[in-house]
Amino acid sequence: MKYLYLFGDGKADGDGSMRSLLGGKGANLAEMSRLGIPVPPGFTISTAVCQYISQQGEYPSGLKDEVEEGLERLHQITGQRFGAIDNPLLLSVRSGAAVSMPGMMDTVLNLGLTDRSVEGLIAQTGNPRFVYDIYRRLIQMYGDVVLKLKEHLSGDRDPFEEIIAQIKAQNGIKIDSDLTAANLKAIVNRFKKVITEHLHREFPQNPMEQLWGAIDAVFASWNTERARKYRQLHHIEEKIGTAVNVQAMVFGNMDERSGTGVAFTRDPSTGENSFYGEYLFNAQGEDVVAGIRTPHPLKTLAKVMPHIYEELLAVREKLEEHYNDMQDLEFTIQQDKLYILQTRVGERTGTAAVRIAVEMADSGKISRREAVRRVSPDQLNQLLHPTFAPAAEKEAILLGRGLPASPGAATGKVVFSAKRAERATADGEPVILVRIETSPEDIGGMDAAAGILTVRGGMTSHAAVVARGMGKCCVSGAGDLLIDYDKREFVAKGIRVKEGEMISLNGSTGAIYQGAIPTIEPHLSGDFKRLLDWADQFRRLAVRTNADTPHDAAVAINFGAEGIGLCRTEHMFFTGERIVAMREMILADDEAGRRRALTKLLPMQRGDFEEIFTVMDGLPVTIRLLDPPLHEFLPHDSAGQEKVATAMGFSAEEVRNKVAALHEANPMLGHRGCRLGLTYREINEMQIRAIIEAAINVKRRGIMVQPEIMVPLVGHWREMELVREVAEQVIAEVFAEQKVTSEEIPYMIGTMLEVPRAAVTADTIAEQAEFFSFGTNDLTQMGCGFSRDDAGKFLSEYIAMGIYEQDPFQVIDRDGIGRLMEMACDLGRKARPRIKLGLCGEHGGDAASIHFCHQIGLDYVSCSPYRVPIARLAAAQAALDENDTAAGGR
Amino acid sequence: MKYLYLFGDGKADGDGSMRSLLGGKGANLAEMSRLGIPVPPGFTISTAVCQYISQQGEYPSGLKDEVEEGLERLHQITGQRFGAIDNPLLLSVRSGAAVSMPGMMDTVLNLGLTDRSVEGLIAQTGNPRFVYDIYRRLIQMYGDVVLKLKEHLSGDRDPFEEIIAQIKAQNGIKIDSDLTAANLKAIVNRFKKVITEHLHREFPQNPMEQLWGAIDAVFASWNTERARKYRQLHHIEEKIGTAVNVQAMVFGNMDERSGTGVAFTRDPSTGENSFYGEYLFNAQGEDVVAGIRTPHPLKTLAKVMPHIYEELLAVREKLEEHYNDMQDLEFTIQQDKLYILQTRVGERTGTAAVRIAVEMADSGKISRREAVRRVSPDQLNQLLHPTFAPAAEKEAILLGRGLPASPGAATGKVVFSAKRAERATADGEPVILVRIETSPEDIGGMDAAAGILTVRGGMTSHAAVVARGMGKCCVSGAGDLLIDYDKREFVAKGIRVKEGEMISLNGSTGAIYQGAIPTIEPHLSGDFKRLLDWADQFRRLAVRTNADTPHDAAVAINFGAEGIGLCRTEHMFFTGERIVAMREMILADDEAGRRRALTKLLPMQRGDFEEIFTVMDGLPVTIRLLDPPLHEFLPHDSAGQEKVATAMGFSAEEVRNKVAALHEANPMLGHRGCRLGLTYREINEMQIRAIIEAAINVKRRGIMVQPEIMVPLVGHWREMELVREVAEQVIAEVFAEQKVTSEEIPYMIGTMLEVPRAAVTADTIAEQAEFFSFGTNDLTQMGCGFSRDDAGKFLSEYIAMGIYEQDPFQVIDRDGIGRLMEMACDLGRKARPRIKLGLCGEHGGDAASIHFCHQIGLDYVSCSPYRVPIARLAAAQAALDENDTAAGGR
Repeated sequence: MKYLYLFGDGKADGDGSMRSLLGGKGANLAEMSRLGIPVPPGFTISTAVCQYISQQGEYPSGLKDEVEEGLERLHQITGQRFGAIDNPLLLSVRSGAAVSMPGMMDTVLNLGLTDRSVEGLIAQTGNPRFVYDIYRRLIQMYGDVVLKLKEHLSGDRDPFEEIIAQIKAQNGIKIDSDLTAANLKAIVNRFKKVITEHLHREFPQNPMEQLWGAIDAVFASWNTERARKYRQLHHIEEKIGTAVNVQAMVFGNMDERSGTGVAFTRDPSTGENSFYGEYLFNAQGEDVVAGIRTPHPLKTLAKVMPHIYEELLAVREKLEEHYNDMQDLEFTIQQDKLYILQTRVGERTGTAAVRIAVEMADSGKISRREAVRRVSPDQLNQLLHPTFAPAAEKEAILLGRGLPASPGAATGKVVFSAKRAERATADGEPVILVRIETSPEDIGGMDAAAGILTVRGGMTSHAAVVARGMGKCCVSGAGDLLIDYDKREFVAKGIRVKEGEMISLNGSTGAIYQGAIPTIEPHLSGDFKRLLDWADQFRRLAVRTNADTPHDAAVAINFGAEGIGLCRTEHMFFTGERIVAMREMILADDEAGRRRALTKLLPMQRGDFEEIFTVMDGLPVTIRLLDPPLHEFLPHDSAGQEKVATAMGFSAEEVRNKVAALHEANPMLGHRGCRLGLTYREINEMQIRAIIEAAINVKRRGIMVQPEIMVPLVGHWREMELVREVAEQVIAEVFAEQKVTSEEIPYMIGTMLEVPRAAVTADTIAEQAEFFSFGTNDLTQMGCGFSRDDAGKFLSEYIAMGIYEQDPFQVIDRDGIGRLMEMACDLGRKARPRIKLGLCGEHGGDAASIHFCHQIGLDYVSCSPYRVPIARLAAAQAALDENDTAAGGR
Repeated sequence: MKYLYLFGDGKADGDGSMRSLLGGKGANLAEMSRLGIPVPPGFTISTAVCQYISQQGEYPSGLKDEVEEGLERLHQITGQRFGAIDNPLLLSVRSGAAVSMPGMMDTVLNLGLTDRSVEGLIAQTGNPRFVYDIYRRLIQMYGDVVLKLKEHLSGDRDPFEEIIAQIKAQNGIKIDSDLTAANLKAIVNRFKKVITEHLHREFPQNPMEQLWGAIDAVFASWNTERARKYRQLHHIEEKIGTAVNVQAMVFGNMDERSGTGVAFTRDPSTGENSFYGEYLFNAQGEDVVAGIRTPHPLKTLAKVMPHIYEELLAVREKLEEHYNDMQDLEFTIQQDKLYILQTRVGERTGTAAVRIAVEMADSGKISRREAVRRVSPDQLNQLLHPTFAPAAEKEAILLGRGLPASPGAATGKVVFSAKRAERATADGEPVILVRIETSPEDIGGMDAAAGILTVRGGMTSHAAVVARGMGKCCVSGAGDLLIDYDKREFVAKGIRVKEGEMISLNGSTGAIYQGAIPTIEPHLSGDFKRLLDWADQFRRLAVRTNADTPHDAAVAINFGAEGIGLCRTEHMFFTGERIVAMREMILADDEAGRRRALTKLLPMQRGDFEEIFTVMDGLPVTIRLLDPPLHEFLPHDSAGQEKVATAMGFSAEEVRNKVAALHEANPMLGHRGCRLGLTYREINEMQIRAIIEAAINVKRRGIMVQPEIMVPLVGHWREMELVREVAEQVIAEVFAEQKVTSEEIPYMIGTMLEVPRAAVTADTIAEQAEFFSFGTNDLTQMGCGFSRDDAGKFLSEYIAMGIYEQDPFQVIDRDGIGRLMEMACDLGRKARPRIKLGLCGEHGGDAASIHFCHQIGLDYVSCSPYRVPIARLAAAQAALDENDTAAGGR
C-alpha cells in the first residue's frame, strides 16, 4: 500500500478526484500541478494513515521510508536539501481533510531551520531580519502546535506574545514589521529559553525530528475537542480523517518584493463575477488569514505588481475553466515570483451561491440541473432573513463601519465573550458577539450569536469565513471601535456601549448602529426566483406550508407554497373574545353549556377559514381539529384564575378546581388530540361545520376550495372511524341546509400520523383515512420517548456522546422514526393504494429530512412559510440525487 | 334457512354441540331431551335471528310461519292448545346466549293466559288461587318486560309491588303465599288498570300478541345497557347475539305438591362431590333465583319427596356422566312430577374449580391435560387472596352470620348503594357493599366493592352468583340485619353500623364482623399444588416474579417462581438513611459530591442484593438499573423541602431550586431510565459494583448466583453499548480486586425493551444486549401515546366506545403493542439467534397476555408474586391451545 503522493514540477502522483484519499488540499495541489499552475513541490501523506493511526495507534510500517524517498524527490526538484546548512529546503506541514474545516487543525511552517542553517540562510539571502523572523515563527508555532507549551502553563498565558510585546516596548516599536534583525534574534533566544524553562527540553536542532514532530501534531489535531465540535456542528463523519501535506516553503516575507494573499475567483459575498481578494506585502499567509493586519484589496496589486496580477488573472481563468466553480486560492509572491499554495471550492454566502450558480448556468459553464445542486438549501436561509427597514436604518445612529463580511441584518445585546453569547442565547436573548478578533475556540458563541462584530481582520479572517459558512451576519475589521474587555464596553464615535446594550449590524454594508432597528420581510426575485423555478422542474415532492393565519398563508404563497399542510385551529382561540368563549366551553358543566359556548365560536372560526381559503385560492388546505389539552386555555396562576372567574361569573374556586381537574402528569400523552373530539363530540361538530360552511361561502364567491380535515393523534382505526362518522354526518347536514352537493366542495378526511401505534397499524387506519400527514414532532417524542420540553437536559449530551448524530427534532432519525414512517407508508398504501402522504412536522423545512421524505415516496412536505424556498430546493436536489443513483452515480 | 329448533318428548332438532346457534340453554334443552331427561317441550329461535335483526332491523321473512308450525308441534306433544280457553297451553319465553349472562336478560312466563282462559283453567284445575297468581305474575312481568311500564314513570316507582303491598296491608297479610284467590283477583284487576292508566292501552287479550311481544322484548334485552356492560366486563363479543327459548310452562306453584329449585351436581363453593341445591314449595323458579324468599337446602327434599329426590339423583348422575363437568340445573315439580328446565356448566369458585378438576382427573373422568384447562387462571386469584388471621378473627366482634356465598376475606367501609361503592373505590377506599338484595343494576358497584353483604337471597341469589363469577367475597341472606337506607345504617345484634364504618366479611364461613381484621397470606397446597404441578408439565414459558425485597422473593418462590424477572433498585433508596444519601447525591454540585454520596449507598445496595440472591438460591435475578427521574426522591411541598434542607445543611432555596431544575413537563418522557446512568455514569458504576460484589460474596457462601443486569429505557443501540462498556469495565475491576473469574459469576447484560424506537431497531440493540425484557407498561404508554397517570380521563370512555376492547394496560393490545413486540422479537433473533426474551410489565400476570407471550415465543414472563400461580396455569393453557391448534382443533 502506498501512503505518499508527490506533486510539483508540472506533474503529480494524485489528481483532483482523489479528495477522500488526499484531502481537499492535497488533491487540489496535485491537480494544480498537473494543470501547470506554479505550485511549490511537496507530497501528501494520505488519509489512510490517519485511519491507520486511529485503529492501530501507530504509523504504518513503510511510512518512514516513503517520507525519506519523498524528501529525496523534493531535493531533486528544488535543488535544495532538507537539513542542509547552505541553501536549505524548508518545509511546511499542513492538514487537509476531504471536507474543509477552516482554521480547525494545525499547521507548522518553516521546518528545517536550525541554529546552524540560520547562519547558512543569512549568508545565502543576505537578509538576517527575514531569517530570524521565520526562525522565531518556526519556534513559536512549534512550541504551540507540537510542544503544546500553553498546556503546560496555568491561566491564559502566551509567553511568546509576551516576549514580543516586551521587546517592542523596550525598543519603542509599534508594529511587528518594524522589528529589526537584532530584535528578532533576541526574540529567538528568549523563545528557546522559554521552551527550556517550561518544558525542560531544547527546541530540536535535528530537522527530521522537527518534521516528524510536526506530522505527529497535525495528525493529532484531527482529534482536538474544537475539531470534533466543528465536525459535529457540520455533520462531518469522524472516520474520514485528515491527510498531511508536506510542501516546500516559499516566502512572502522575504522582502518588500514578496507578499502573500488570498483570492476568490468571484466575490464570495455577492457572487459578482469579479476577481476578489486581499494581500499583504512582506508577510506569511497566516498573517492574512488570522486577521492580525488588515490587508489590501487584490485590485491594488494590478498597479503595484502588474505582471503578478496578470499571472494571477490567468490562474483564475484556468482554475474556473477547470473546476467550473468559484475557487478560493492562496498565493505567495517570493521575490517577484508567484506561487499558488492551494485552491479549493470557495465558501460563499447564500446570495453569492445563488448568483454564481445562475450566472454559470446562463453562461453555459454548468447545466441548470447542476446549478440547482450547487446551492445548499440551508444557505438560502440567509436570503430569507429579514433586512433593515430602509427608513429606520437611515435614521439610526451609526457607530461605525467595518467590512461587510457576511450579509444580513442582526440586532441583539452586546456580549464580549463566546461563553456569555451561548448563555444569553440559551436564555432566549439575541446577542451580538463583539470581539477584537475571533479564534476557533469561539465557534460555539459564534453559532449562538445573532451577529458577529470584530475590530481586526479582513473579509477572509476567521470571523468572516466562519460567519459566512453559518449564514450569519458579520461585520469584521471595524478598526475604529475601542474594546475594553475588562470594563465590558466599547467606545465608537465617542459613544460608550456597555455589555447588554442593543446594537444592530448590517452585514451587507458593514454598518454598525446603536439600538435595535426594525426589519422588513424578504421576498423572492431575480436570480433567486429563477433558481427556484429551475428547481421546480426537477422536484417530485410538492411543498406546502404550515400556516394558521391569512398573513402566514400569503407569505408562503409568495414563496411558492402549493397549499397549506397544517393549519392549527387552536391558535384561533387565544385572542380577544375567543378565549372568553373557549373558557366558557371548558368551564361548562355539561354538554348543553359547552354547545352554547361553541355556538359563539362557530362564526369566528368560520370567518378565519373563509379568509384562509380566499388567500389560498383553490390550493388544498389541511385543517387540523383541536389538538392541545384544554388546560392550555386556562390561566395557571391564581391571579389569572381570579381574573377569569370574575370576568365569567364563576368563583375563583371553581376555576381553580377546573384547572386542577384538568392537570395531567404527562400532558403530552394525555387528554388531547382526537381524544378531545371523541369525548366532547360537540367540539368536532362545531369545527367541521365551520370548515364546510366557510368552504361553501368562499365557493359562492367564485373561489375554488379544497378543504382537508385532519384528525390529530389517531392511534387506533376506530378513533378515525368514529371521528369520520361524525364529520360525514355534519357535512351531510350542512350540504343539505345549504343545498350543495359533494362534487361542489371536494373535501378529504385524514389523519396526522404521529402515534407509534398508528404507524404499525397504518393499514387499518388507512381504511378510514384518505390521507396521512406525518406529525414527526410528536412521532419523535413518542417513538424515542423524548419529551421535547424536557429532552434538552440530556439530548445535547447524547449528541456529544454520539448516541444520536443529530438532534432528532431537527433532522428525522431515519433509523428509528424513519423506519416507523416507512412502515406506515407501506401499510397505508397496501390498504389504500392512492392514499395521499405528507409531512407537516418541523422536519418539513430541513433538507436532510426532505431527502428522506422524497426517498420514501411522500407526496408533499409542509414547512413554515420562510422555509418554503428551502424545501423547494431540497426537494429538487433529492430528485436529482435519485436520478443519479438510478443512473449509476454522478 | 331454518330458524326454529324443536325439543321435547325424548327427541330434538338440535343438540348440545350447537351452542353458538341455539345458545347454551337451548342446546342443553335439546341435548337433555335427547338424553331422555324430562324436559317440558318447546322450541328455540336461533341466534341467527338476533344477528339478522341487528343487521336488518326486522325479523327474517319465514320466521312467523316457523313459529306457527312449532306451536302446532307443541300442541301435538302436550295435548294442550296455545290460546285455548279450556286446557290452554301456557308458554315461557327466555333468552339464552352461547355464553351465560346470569340475570342479564329478560324472561316472560305464563304466556297464553287471558281473562277468558283464566276461567277455563280455573274450571280445569279447580284452583282459582293458583290461576289468579300466575295471571298476576304474567301481567306483572309483561308490564315490566314487554310494556316497560317503569320507563313511563318518574322516580323509582314500582306500581305493581305497591298494589301487592296495599292489598296485603288492607288484609293484614304478611307473606305472599297467604294471599287468597280473591286478593289475587283484585290484584289482577288493579294491575290491568295500572297498565291502562299509564300506557293508555289494554293488557293484550290475544295470546299470539302476548307471545310476539315477549319474543320481541327478549331479543331487545340483548341490547340493554346493563347487558352491554356485563359483556364488556366479561369480554363477551357483541355479535354472538341471543337465542330465544319458547317452552311449555310447568308450575311449581300449582299447589303444595309442587315446587321449584336449583341444583348443582357438586358444591359450587367448595367443589365437594356432593349434590347441592335449594328449592321452594309452591313457587315459580324466579322466586328462588331472585332471592325474595330464602329456600330450603336440597337434601331436605329426600325426606319430603323421596321419589323426586331419587329421580333428581339419577338426573345428576346422567348429566355428569354425559357432560363430564359440574352442572347447574333448574327443576320444577308439578303435582309430584319432576321437570328439568335447564342445565348448564355450573359457575364455581376458584377453590371449587380446582377441586372439581383435580377430583375428576383422579377419578379418570377427564385427563390431567383437560383438568389443567378446566380452571380459569383468573379464578385462581380467589385462592391467592389473603384470609383472616385466625386469632384476630376469633376475637373480632361478630355482627351476625349469613350464607357463605363466595369465599375469601374482605374488609372495608360500609356503603349502601352501588353508586357510592364505585365512587369510594375510585377514591381508593375499600368498601363493603351492603344491600337488602342486589339487582343487575348494581353490577358496577359489586365489581368495585371489596365484598358484598345481602340480607335476602340464598346461595344462588343474584348477589351470590355474580360475586362468585367475580371471585369476590360475598355473604348473602344475612336475615338478622336491619338495614335503614334512609338513615344509611344497619343494626345487627344491637350494634348500629353507620355508612363509612369498617366491617369485615368471611365469605367462606358467612361471618360478619365489626371493624377491620388483619389477614394472612395464602399458600399453595393440596389440590391447588397438584393442579399447578400438572400445569408445569405442559407449559413452555418460564414464570418469574417481579420482586424488590427478599420477602417478595420468598413469597414468589413459594408460589413456584423460577427467577426474578424484575428487581427495581430504586425501591431500595426510599427508606431511612438511604433516602438521605440519595438526596445528598441529587443535591451535590458535581461528580465528586455525587460519588461521595454513592459511596454511602454502595454497601446498603450490596446488602440488599446479597439477601435477594440468597433467597433466590441460584435462580436468575434480573436487576434493573436506576429508572425513575431524580425529582421523585425529593419532596415537592415546601414543608418537606425545608425539612430536607435543615437536615442536610442546605438552604431551603437550594432544595427548592433543585426541585425546580428537575421539574419536567412530561417526566414519563424525560430524564430517566438509562438516560440517568449515561449522564451520571457514577450511578451505574455504583449499582453494577454492588451487584457483582454481592454476587461474589454470596457465591463464597456456596450459593449459586445468576445476575442479569437490565438497562432501562434503551431506545438506541449506542445507549446500550455505552452502558455495557461501563458495566464491563466495572465488572472487570471487581473481578480483578476479588480475584474471581467470569466463569465463577456468569452474568448477563440486557435491556428492558419499552421504547417504540427500540422495538423497530431491535436488531441493532440485540448486538449489544444479551436479553430483552419487554416493559409493556411503558411500551404501551409510548406506543399508544397514553400516559398511565392521565389516561383514566378518557380510556374508560374509549373502551365504552369500543375503540379498545380492553384496557391496554391490563391486557396487551395485540394489534398495536403486540405488533411492536413481534417486530422486536424477529429483529432481535435475527441479530442474536439465542437472545433471551421475557416480559416484566404488569401484563405478565394476565392470562390473555401470557397466551400472547407464548405465541410470539418468549422465554419467560415475570409477574407479581401473588400472580405466579396464575401465570403458571395460563402458560400451560397457552401451550395446550397451541398443541390443539397444531393438531387441527380440539
